[in-house]
Amino acid sequence: MSEDRRLDRLSSMLRRRGIVLPAFEIYGGVSGLIDYGPVGASIRRRVVEIWIDHWLSQGDIVEIDSPTITPEEVLVASGHVGEFNDLMTECKSCNSAFRADHIVGDDSETMDKKEIDKILANGVICPSCSKSEWTPSSPMNLMFSTRLGAMSSGRTAYMRPETAQGMFMLFPSLYRHFRQKLPFGAIQTGKGYRNEISPRQGMVRLREFNMAELEYFIDPQNPPMYSGGSEVVTLIPDPQSEYSGEKKISFAEALDKNIIRHPTVAWFLSRTWDFLIKVGINSDKIRFRQHANNEMAHYASDCWDCEIYGEYGWIECVGIANRTCHDLESHEKSSKTSTLRAWRNFEEPKVEEKEKLFPNGSVIGPMLRADAREVASIIEEMEKLPEKIPFDLKLSDGRTITITADMVERRLETITVNGEWFTPHVIEPAFGIDRIIWHILDHAYEESQKEGEPYTYLRLAKGVSNVDCIVLPLFDKDGMGDLAKNYAQQINSIPNIRSEIDFSKSIGRRYARADEIGIPWAITVDHTSIEDGSVTIRRRDDQVQIRAEIGDLIGHLRNKTMDSLF
Amino acid sequence: MSEDRRLDRLSSMLRRRGIVLPAFEIYGGVSGLIDYGPVGASIRRRVVEIWIDHWLSQGDIVEIDSPTITPEEVLVASGHVGEFNDLMTECKSCNSAFRADHIVGDDSETMDKKEIDKILANGVICPSCSKSEWTPSSPMNLMFSTRLGAMSSGRTAYMRPETAQGMFMLFPSLYRHFRQKLPFGAIQTGKGYRNEISPRQGMVRLREFNMAELEYFIDPQNPPMYSGGSEVVTLIPDPQSEYSGEKKISFAEALDKNIIRHPTVAWFLSRTWDFLIKVGINSDKIRFRQHANNEMAHYASDCWDCEIYGEYGWIECVGIANRTCHDLESHEKSSKTSTLRAWRNFEEPKVEEKEKLFPNGSVIGPMLRADAREVASIIEEMEKLPEKIPFDLKLSDGRTITITADMVERRLETITVNGEWFTPHVIEPAFGIDRIIWHILDHAYEESQKEGEPYTYLRLAKGVSNVDCIVLPLFDKDGMGDLAKNYAQQINSIPNIRSEIDFSKSIGRRYARADEIGIPWAITVDHTSIEDGSVTIRRRDDQVQIRAEIGDLIGHLRNKTMDSLF
Repeated sequence: MSEDRRLDRLSSMLRRRGIVLPAFEIYGGVSGLIDYGPVGASIRRRVVEIWIDHWLSQGDIVEIDSPTITPEEVLVASGHVGEFNDLMTECKSCNSAFRADHIVGDDSETMDKKEIDKILANGVICPSCSKSEWTPSSPMNLMFSTRLGAMSSGRTAYMRPETAQGMFMLFPSLYRHFRQKLPFGAIQTGKGYRNEISPRQGMVRLREFNMAELEYFIDPQNPPMYSGGSEVVTLIPDPQSEYSGEKKISFAEALDKNIIRHPTVAWFLSRTWDFLIKVGINSDKIRFRQHANNEMAHYASDCWDCEIYGEYGWIECVGIANRTCHDLESHEKSSKTSTLRAWRNFEEPKVEEKEKLFPNGSVIGPMLRADAREVASIIEEMEKLPEKIPFDLKLSDGRTITITADMVERRLETITVNGEWFTPHVIEPAFGIDRIIWHILDHAYEESQKEGEPYTYLRLAKGVSNVDCIVLPLFDKDGMGDLAKNYAQQINSIPNIRSEIDFSKSIGRRYARADEIGIPWAITVDHTSIEDGSVTIRRRDDQVQIRAEIGDLIGHLRNKTMDSLF
Repeated sequence: MSEDRRLDRLSSMLRRRGIVLPAFEIYGGVSGLIDYGPVGASIRRRVVEIWIDHWLSQGDIVEIDSPTITPEEVLVASGHVGEFNDLMTECKSCNSAFRADHIVGDDSETMDKKEIDKILANGVICPSCSKSEWTPSSPMNLMFSTRLGAMSSGRTAYMRPETAQGMFMLFPSLYRHFRQKLPFGAIQTGKGYRNEISPRQGMVRLREFNMAELEYFIDPQNPPMYSGGSEVVTLIPDPQSEYSGEKKISFAEALDKNIIRHPTVAWFLSRTWDFLIKVGINSDKIRFRQHANNEMAHYASDCWDCEIYGEYGWIECVGIANRTCHDLESHEKSSKTSTLRAWRNFEEPKVEEKEKLFPNGSVIGPMLRADAREVASIIEEMEKLPEKIPFDLKLSDGRTITITADMVERRLETITVNGEWFTPHVIEPAFGIDRIIWHILDHAYEESQKEGEPYTYLRLAKGVSNVDCIVLPLFDKDGMGDLAKNYAQQINSIPNIRSEIDFSKSIGRRYARADEIGIPWAITVDHTSIEDGSVTIRRRDDQVQIRAEIGDLIGHLRNKTMDSLF
């Protein structure tokens, strides 16, 4: 097997076996849109379920589910309307549109408009028509826009570019749910959208993708500390820092050395590692790359990309960022609410002296008569001192009264302050589920030989394959077919344990198909099964076969202890 | 408790407890869009997982996952571009848009444009400005439209109005997956979109909703038969049929009597019933209503709505339709493919006589020389006889040769035909998940009293509540808090079993909250727990409390046998 066509062979297997396919293929397909087929959709769902369970089991994280259609004002506040752009250019000859950085061969995505336009003018060839006349590059917003409602009452909306905004919108509900106590987190999984100008790289750059994001809200003065993980991982610290250069180091040590700049970020780097290992990513093909200061969003204080190595090189699959108070503050400002805050008690109540105004009753009583009581109470309740005296004071009926120096007295008052409102900081791990699934498949795909013929395995981690086992009647006669159906049905009646049954072709061909799509256990029903209820169990990973009684087998499937049979 | 405000109290509880909330509320909300909050999102996910498991456990059904963004041609073929419209009207005075049938008070949705315009002209008051000048009603397409790609190379697309089209697109992959053998089914869950002009009724009429659809492909000459279910249900047969009027009858008997017109439809009606009971819908509040002939789509041959009764009256929550070969045929025609078919073997091979042309070698040999061989083979491979002789025949190099009567011989040939290609029929159960969840909540919500105060329960079915149990330290002192945390963590380490912990306020208040959001088991950690590891378990449904050892409890949670402790 030549290594250089491995990507083609893998992609073709994924398509043939109904794992991942181009979407709308009978209509010629749409680039950037994929289907998870009859085998792949269950793999996708199981990876997402493992992700959800990974975080919910922590105990202080809950899930939420918000709409994908998002009104414009939300995405103005988040910065997506103003900033979520790529430079694009159009061929003047054939009208094909391209991402400008791609067409000039800048894969680092760091060139600016000036540099790109200069290269375009120097004769870049159009991939569609081979001419080379380009429009100047111009930014295009990458969100899919639509309209909510109809006609004059319609309003602009976008398909969400990320799931994160839903968690910020629900902060008041989350804060109530957790009884006003930080830290806590919320997760959301679902579709995200990005109207790529020229999508490419299979599952890596999609227009509609599966995301899974976590927003963990903390008090920056009292962040959750990290203790744990001694596994040695690959870190690539900020190249502008004193730690530049690839390191093999544990998260704990990296935090100690201040390579990782925040304890909660270290905690999530470590939990991200745990998740990736659990779903079958090869530990040698994971690295964590820290953003340089000029690469990070202005508000962020520590950002890491978790990159996974595969057929497309190192690909960013998870981003873990300390986004500070940026998101909640922007939304408070834009929505003109004050509900995106948390209360912090001081360790010791603070006693403060505060200048206050007190009404001078002996002056305002005779002077204002019926209005005196209202004026006195307004003055007493003033939180801030007026900038100067005299000042104007508005009564409830709209009249204004001028307060002069003789009408009030200025005194220091001692007050006790128990705590304060503040905007929580947020640590955000954001997972690209399709990219992770791509690498799960890439790492699990093993090409080998059997009797001189190519033979492939998909060595998926337990719990990630589309079904837990396959039931194979040796022949579809003498009652073997019916018995196999009966066994498959018994297995399927266990919640969340799935089997499929396969009657087609020779037993060897059926084993090969099961190995190729990654089913961990093949259960063969033969003549002996009819006599004594025993079956052959074949383990995908070493093809060892043992004999067991069907009741035992079902118990082990239920308890996920199949390996103990071997 | 007065019954008339029950809807308001329920909605307010759902919001306060983070179950279902208006989306984007800090920005004033968007009608027709909702959030599932920190409690509701888990309920939603669990209902969807039960739905998926319900069908996958059948063994001949798989899941798929396709994009929500759908290119226009797919939805032209499905009829949605041409037919998915509501009549709307706009107030000439304030420009508010409304669904025309709603504004004239036609809840049956059966009036046509003429009738509606007549009523509009007769002085219907605008709910926004109280004037009464209306534009003539006009159809508005209810899909959210957007554009894939940019500038000249962009193409029109829509957010899918249903998930069904994804299954039709993937028919070739499904057919291969099931080794070319019918029947088989595919399910898909996910978002659907409908740009309602004037959304209302909370979770019942949403602009973005959770759908769950199944397409079950069958050979109409050999449909899967139904046998089973003797439970008596409420059917409302086609009012134009001899069976008009509500019936209490079993599915089996209704099929026998031909009230249900197709055995596979009967099977899915029965499996739909099973699902609804499993997730906690009250069996007395379910009925199945058959469409009259003039209500059904022209291609459909038997359609049933499963309606559920709740605060909004009887609401259609599931539709079960025999859509015949309509969808696959439309897509074959529009996509100009021939891959949406299945092969049917005849019971006995058919021997047919067929007229064929044979080349007359002694004529064409000398006449055509070097071309004779190619011409002979083209003639032999002709599937259809030419309409007349002489006729023109095209060679591979583009030249045309005229074939005259003397160059060919016409003979009858005997051939054996083993089977034929045909378009499978499809039975489609389509579930509105949000509407079902609404009714789960509605049916579970019970208002009662405790010590003279209002007290509410959410009597959710097992497995549907947001967490499986709540752990409550009696006090947060003497180690009870830490022990409770430890127990909660042990429970959370069981896959898919979730606990939460609650430290807030009095134990009575915490029980009340747990009852209100439907948590089935409350586990209290007290002084005795510290001594002997025993805890109190309180059952939501009857408030009975027992004492058990924590290890036992965890085993019963894992095995879902908690009731056996009581």
